[in-house]
Amino acid sequence: MAEFKLDLARQERIGLDEAIFCAGKTADQIAAILDSFPAGGGLLLTRLDGAKFEALPARLRSALDYEPLSRTAILGTPRPARALAPVAVVMAGTSDVPMGREACRTLMFNGQPHTAFTDIGVAGLWRLLDRIEEIRRAPVVIVAAGMDAALVSVMGGLVGAPVVALPTSVGYGVAEGGMPALHSALASCAPGVAVVNIDNGYGAACAALRICNLLARRDVAPPAGASHFVTP
Amino acid sequence: MAEFKLDLARQERIGLDEAIFCAGKTADQIAAILDSFPAGGGLLLTRLDGAKFEALPARLRSALDYEPLSRTAILGTPRPARALAPVAVVMAGTSDVPMGREACRTLMFNGQPHTAFTDIGVAGLWRLLDRIEEIRRAPVVIVAAGMDAALVSVMGGLVGAPVVALPTSVGYGVAEGGMPALHSALASCAPGVAVVNIDNGYGAACAALRICNLLARRDVAPPAGASHFVTP
Amino acid sequence: MAEFKLDLARQERIGLDEAIFCAGKTADQIAAILDSFPAGGGLLLTRLDGAKFEALPARLRSALDYEPLSRTAILGTPRPARALAPVAVVMAGTSDVPMGREACRTLMFNGQPHTAFTDIGVAGLWRLLDRIEEIRRAPVVIVAAGMDAALVSVMGGLVGAPVVALPTSVGYGVAEGGMPALHSALASCAPGVAVVNIDNGYGAACAALRICNLLARRDVAPPAGASHFVTP
Amino acid sequence: MAEFKLDLARQERIGLDEAIFCAGKTADQIAAILDSFPAGGGLLLTRLDGAKFEALPARLRSALDYEPLSRTAILGTPRPARALAPVAVVMAGTSDVPMGREACRTLMFNGQPHTAFTDIGVAGLWRLLDRIEEIRRAPVVIVAAGMDAALVSVMGGLVGAPVVALPTSVGYGVAEGGMPALHSALASCAPGVAVVNIDNGYGAACAALRICNLLARRDVAPPAGASHFVTP
Amino acid sequence: MAEFKLDLARQERIGLDEAIFCAGKTADQIAAILDSFPAGGGLLLTRLDGAKFEALPARLRSALDYEPLSRTAILGTPRPARALAPVAVVMAGTSDVPMGREACRTLMFNGQPHTAFTDIGVAGLWRLLDRIEEIRRAPVVIVAAGMDAALVSVMGGLVGAPVVALPTSVGYGVAEGGMPALHSALASCAPGVAVVNIDNGYGAACAALRICNLLARRDVAPPAGASHFVTP
Amino acid sequence: MAEFKLDLARQERIGLDEAIFCAGKTADQIAAILDSFPAGGGLLLTRLDGAKFEALPARLRSALDYEPLSRTAILGTPRPARALAPVAVVMAGTSDVPMGREACRTLMFNGQPHTAFTDIGVAGLWRLLDRIEEIRRAPVVIVAAGMDAALVSVMGGLVGAPVVALPTSVGYGVAEGGMPALHSALASCAPGVAVVNIDNGYGAACAALRICNLLARRDVAPPAGASHFVTP
Amino acid sequence: MAEFKLDLARQERIGLDEAIFCAGKTADQIAAILDSFPAGGGLLLTRLDGAKFEALPARLRSALDYEPLSRTAILGTPRPARALAPVAVVMAGTSDVPMGREACRTLMFNGQPHTAFTDIGVAGLWRLLDRIEEIRRAPVVIVAAGMDAALVSVMGGLVGAPVVALPTSVGYGVAEGGMPALHSALASCAPGVAVVNIDNGYGAACAALRICNLLARRDVAPPAGASHFVTP
Amino acid sequence: MAEFKLDLARQERIGLDEAIFCAGKTADQIAAILDSFPAGGGLLLTRLDGAKFEALPARLRSALDYEPLSRTAILGTPRPARALAPVAVVMAGTSDVPMGREACRTLMFNGQPHTAFTDIGVAGLWRLLDRIEEIRRAPVVIVAAGMDAALVSVMGGLVGAPVVALPTSVGYGVAEGGMPALHSALASCAPGVAVVNIDNGYGAACAALRICNLLARRDVAPPAGASHFVTP
Repeated sequence: MAEFKLDLARQERIGLDEAIFCAGKTADQIAAILDSFPAGGGLLLTRLDGAKFEALPARLRSALDYEPLSRTAILGTPRPARALAPVAVVMAGTSDVPMGREACRTLMFNGQPHTAFTDIGVAGLWRLLDRIEEIRRAPVVIVAAGMDAALVSVMGGLVGAPVVALPTSVGYGVAEGGMPALHSALASCAPGVAVVNIDNGYGAACAALRICNLLARRDVAPPAGASHFVTP
Repeated sequence: MAEFKLDLARQERIGLDEAIFCAGKTADQIAAILDSFPAGGGLLLTRLDGAKFEALPARLRSALDYEPLSRTAILGTPRPARALAPVAVVMAGTSDVPMGREACRTLMFNGQPHTAFTDIGVAGLWRLLDRIEEIRRAPVVIVAAGMDAALVSVMGGLVGAPVVALPTSVGYGVAEGGMPALHSALASCAPGVAVVNIDNGYGAACAALRICNLLARRDVAPPAGASHFVTP
Repeated sequence: MAEFKLDLARQERIGLDEAIFCAGKTADQIAAILDSFPAGGGLLLTRLDGAKFEALPARLRSALDYEPLSRTAILGTPRPARALAPVAVVMAGTSDVPMGREACRTLMFNGQPHTAFTDIGVAGLWRLLDRIEEIRRAPVVIVAAGMDAALVSVMGGLVGAPVVALPTSVGYGVAEGGMPALHSALASCAPGVAVVNIDNGYGAACAALRICNLLARRDVAPPAGASHFVTP
Repeated sequence: MAEFKLDLARQERIGLDEAIFCAGKTADQIAAILDSFPAGGGLLLTRLDGAKFEALPARLRSALDYEPLSRTAILGTPRPARALAPVAVVMAGTSDVPMGREACRTLMFNGQPHTAFTDIGVAGLWRLLDRIEEIRRAPVVIVAAGMDAALVSVMGGLVGAPVVALPTSVGYGVAEGGMPALHSALASCAPGVAVVNIDNGYGAACAALRICNLLARRDVAPPAGASHFVTP
Repeated sequence: MAEFKLDLARQERIGLDEAIFCAGKTADQIAAILDSFPAGGGLLLTRLDGAKFEALPARLRSALDYEPLSRTAILGTPRPARALAPVAVVMAGTSDVPMGREACRTLMFNGQPHTAFTDIGVAGLWRLLDRIEEIRRAPVVIVAAGMDAALVSVMGGLVGAPVVALPTSVGYGVAEGGMPALHSALASCAPGVAVVNIDNGYGAACAALRICNLLARRDVAPPAGASHFVTP
Repeated sequence: MAEFKLDLARQERIGLDEAIFCAGKTADQIAAILDSFPAGGGLLLTRLDGAKFEALPARLRSALDYEPLSRTAILGTPRPARALAPVAVVMAGTSDVPMGREACRTLMFNGQPHTAFTDIGVAGLWRLLDRIEEIRRAPVVIVAAGMDAALVSVMGGLVGAPVVALPTSVGYGVAEGGMPALHSALASCAPGVAVVNIDNGYGAACAALRICNLLARRDVAPPAGASHFVTP
Repeated sequence: MAEFKLDLARQERIGLDEAIFCAGKTADQIAAILDSFPAGGGLLLTRLDGAKFEALPARLRSALDYEPLSRTAILGTPRPARALAPVAVVMAGTSDVPMGREACRTLMFNGQPHTAFTDIGVAGLWRLLDRIEEIRRAPVVIVAAGMDAALVSVMGGLVGAPVVALPTSVGYGVAEGGMPALHSALASCAPGVAVVNIDNGYGAACAALRICNLLARRDVAPPAGASHFVTP
Repeated sequence: MAEFKLDLARQERIGLDEAIFCAGKTADQIAAILDSFPAGGGLLLTRLDGAKFEALPARLRSALDYEPLSRTAILGTPRPARALAPVAVVMAGTSDVPMGREACRTLMFNGQPHTAFTDIGVAGLWRLLDRIEEIRRAPVVIVAAGMDAALVSVMGGLVGAPVVALPTSVGYGVAEGGMPALHSALASCAPGVAVVNIDNGYGAACAALRICNLLARRDVAPPAGASHFVTP
């Protein structure tokens, strides 16, 4: 019996395709979703761990572009790359790569160019300063960092572009689960940093895509007659 | 003795002026900061409650444009309004107005047009749907909501523009302090919602300004020779 | 030695049969409870995971109606369906189905009609509005939702019937364990929403049954001579 | 400038009038709301503490029926009492009276009869058992209790009617703020107890009103042709 | 190399033998402790789960009196039973038996008589009242209860003997880990209830033993010349 | 109107008089309780802060023995002192004196001798060791300590008598509210320490009184024919 | 009656004088402590807020060197300055000055030179890098920072000296109370950062003093015959 | 593709080699890091559990000095032991040995002598006092303790050397995860105790190394002309 209904109109409504979050679903449920998907389109699957991927029928496994570290899979064809400067996806350490790569795969699936920067931690500040000019050219900067997430504030003070903080659950003791990274990002001393949920690489990419879609549209001139400041 | 140093180069570096966060400072400290400020510029003060404003010397009080509900004050002249469509600042209820207005004042100080929408709660869904077309024209949507912050997810599913969630500390019992609103926004079922700290109207506005500054620059064509997708 | 005593008089006292919560019990303990149960009656088992079901003796396994997704089993015969309009069991997403189905199975075991609604999330508001008229005909609405549980508030603003919120533990990061869903439901901006524990489909159904039992009794005329308002 | 919009259609939509939550509003904002209210109707104000009431203009103060312990005020005329058995509002101790009385006032404003029971704590079990027969005649039982809220479970095991737990913030140490009372009610060993936010007497009454409205309507026969059990 | 040193003088100093807490130790470490133990004495092991017990050398396994549900083992001979009325160990439900039994085994090992009472939950109040006279004869009452732990307060209001609350980690959702049971016991409305850590059956028994040892000594006449009340 | 009912049978049932917890009550409510109290008896009031005491009518103020630091008051005559060795009330520092003194006043009101020991912190271990012999003569030891509450474990390892830990809310930062003291006491490495709620000096004294009442009764011989060990 | 006993031997035992923590004490208690203090010595008082200082007798007020921002007072004469390089006390922002100054005053009272550095936040990285060479000359670096405390990690990666993190309670929303700053410091990606309690400027200075005392002693040659590595 | 970059200049900059934290990395990632390491140096690996070690290629396994209890491995040659008195690594119980040993291995790898002390809990105070003179000779004392971590405060009151508290996650109930141990250490009543993250034996050793490196340098004379006290 059908227990799911894909929101195929989401792209039209908000410019983002629906993705299938696999963590709370059985392999059978995922297979049923894939089988119900209309041919010709593209579909992104997130949080698909290796064991669950292996439990899918062979015909579905071979139809998927699966990447194990980020636990993402793509069915069908990603959108073609568009002509925008690449989003910067900056990862503080090796342990942040899975979440950062989930963001990269989501951007790629949606046709948005990106560049990944790895091992850019603040404990080795010079490695960060060496690459800052390149990062500054990005229209949006995603910063994946766990533990103290100090990189978020440092980056927020060095670039003027929108910064999307992606706190990660890397850590132990007080950092178990990623709360300090999340709270550091929210309490960042750098102004205007925006934050997504812990380990939510998909969400960080979607936040970046909302911005990049806006840049691609370029129809943000003020409506005629609009008053400038309407405060309550 | 000077205990503070204004970061006057911040505007040049990241496109945002430094603001003075007054909550942890005495009236004497604030007066000293204002006195040290070079003439001709503009300065935004946040979290300046009424009692502390009254404790400032009369010459400083008369130099400030003070607004009590948002607890903001402006010294000098805001930037002139620029030609961008207004940011939408949507407030779920009357109790969210102080935080939403802090965002409005910050946008205004930086020359960014905005429109405020009030009493747009999901418990009265039709009031929201009545105004959604107008909201959809905004380049960025700030959503100020407390309690369950359900408005964040509803809005995130209805507009394609970047959505900045501003959770507020309105509430009692489990909602005391605003944690449920923050966590609802972070766990939103609408993709790509970005979040700032509880009651951080200034930060929400800065996140919107980073995006609007980008739109105003319009120099986001890809650099020559950039590879499209560089994933780690 | 007998370590348990079934409360067989509970039905008479409060109109609800006792159920066996299997999560903290060994297969041996469960088997002993089933063997001690008097023939002819019906018994509901909750939180019986697949491995524990398989560890029961074959004669008990074949006597049970087991449903794996909801982890419920029924021994003996459910009560016959009574003539009341069906309770609505609304599930926000596929991941909420196990908890919603536990509620459905509990209602069915107690002879209460119900209708399940799936994939009714607020991020796709139109899917919800398409079905709201049907939901409005229910005497009680159970809403199973995780993450931000925004559906609870939206539903609470659209129907006048009693709404029982069933927050689920679906999610990760700040939503890990279901606390944001619980807190959103408790802080709902829609008035009069009542809430049960996270993942407690059985409890949500029992709360609905207490209401439906009342409707079936219909003996709620005021006692003679009762003063209307006796406030402390 | 109008910062609020009363949802005057709420009564028609869900059978509950909108109430004004005064905690996050200034006396000026409350006065503006009252002044904008159409003559002839009735309006309930909650969380209106004494100082704020005193700060209202005299003409508004004299128009309000104000009760200080529950911090509620009523503008205009409550609905006439209807012919339903009284809801039982049970308070564990003297400190729970303010929250219980907020529930009583909300019921009274909506025309629903009720009876209040005070000092019914489980540490003196006989006082509870002496009054249980009277409580059992109520269509709905609201239980206001703080600290360990043990009364919720005891009551849930003694009555078959819907039980609405109203945890209160009475207490200190681990009970500061009411979390143990809330969690005890959610984890109650009595099946089918439904819970509202800490200190939310208004919400507990609204949950009871949703049930009583249903009883008053009595139109809950099943629609023709409805299948009994539609599980996902 | 010796990494541990048994505190063999503890019995003399405080009247309680040291027990070996096995949860954080490897099977090799436990075997080394047992091998170093002087012949002729008795030793209690707690938190020894089945897999770890099976990993011990056969000669040690056969020397131990192992009980799997409570995860306790006894090496050597318990103390002979002394002539004191039995401690009551009251368990709210079947899921509380492992913790209650750990208390029973600790009492038995120390020669203290006890009686276990099972399935004494408050949701079925009559089962509790049927047995209260027997419980009242105990010098100390240990109450093992999870979820809302309402039994603690009910029992504390019915008996005058010292009550030791043993909150258990039985539960899910807000009750996951046992915090509500702990907090309910600490905030109990019954005066003078003392509490031990969640699942600490050994500690509850030791608290009871401190009291029973005192009763066995009976040397609590006041010292000559002691002033009665010396308040700071 | 009567909103309270004193539980005058409590002394008979559990050997402890009811006390009036004043924190959640208005001066009017307290005065009404005192006026309703039958002449000739004794009544203990706790958490009666100075302002509230001053708000009582003069005739009641003069009838009360009020002690401001412990915020306790006694109406009527305490019980005469009985012939038991004094309970030791040990306070780690000056800041713990209010809570320790609440325990002392409760013991005194109930006729139980006690001796107070002050400034017995572990950071100055020798001060503690100097007085340990005197403390060892007590039938029960109450330990009032905040911050890390290390004194609880040290004391639990030095005396064999029942130890009642009274964690206090003294502290700041992580110790704000007393949680670390409570958790340290619950996780104490000394076996058999029993714990009451933070700042609950009254409860600590009641736990001691339950033990001392038992010693005073001395009727704890085993009932004829009782089996020694009845484990579930 | 004496409720306190100064630990005058502490200096001899661990090289640090006892300080009087005034937060939990009344002005009367503090006056009694000061009066009992032997003439000729020095005494440090912490957390003495202005109102409490004003409530002291005039003769005591004039004997104290009181500094309001740090809420410290000194009775008698500090130790003479010794010949060690100054400890660096680095403060991220103006709001961190009170806590940093408490550390400075404690160092000064104990004769340890120090240098304060203010407004060294990471959002303006160049201000930090400008002063790093001077900071690197310190034997110990105390870093006072609130909000995200990113400065702790940046500093820990730039200097080799012992770093003592002093998280401050500056902030709001998730940063209310200072938990994110504490957790960031504990989870710092820079190795070997040691942390004290939130706002504990006195403790940070004492940690530095333990190190500086060691440097002043310089008697850390290995004892004859010591094995180098004795691992358990 | 290279996802990591070793910070080989860290030793020069802050005197500590970079270590490889293996918990968040796959065996493949660790192998790649080891293969990229330049011959002749030494490298410390932490949190390398047995299964992951076994998954490394045989050639790498044989090149590593692996110690399973502390989960550390050393590639290449540790630094030669230097002539400083040994750091004391004090462990409260057997369960704290893994974390204490991680500290010992880190010290050894860096050439710093140390001595380990085991089973030094406060519940057996005499065992601690027997060894205190030896511990007092250490330049730094690391205290590894879980549960209530009372040993930290006792030790801090007995020695004048820098004390680094290493709270451990040993425990259950409220102590699950180590929070009470951490909070007790942070709220210690002994002045100047510095704390590292839960289970962070590596970090505790690094904090000690920063101090020992300072002692080895001995260049802490004040710079010419430095003012003694420069307070903000």
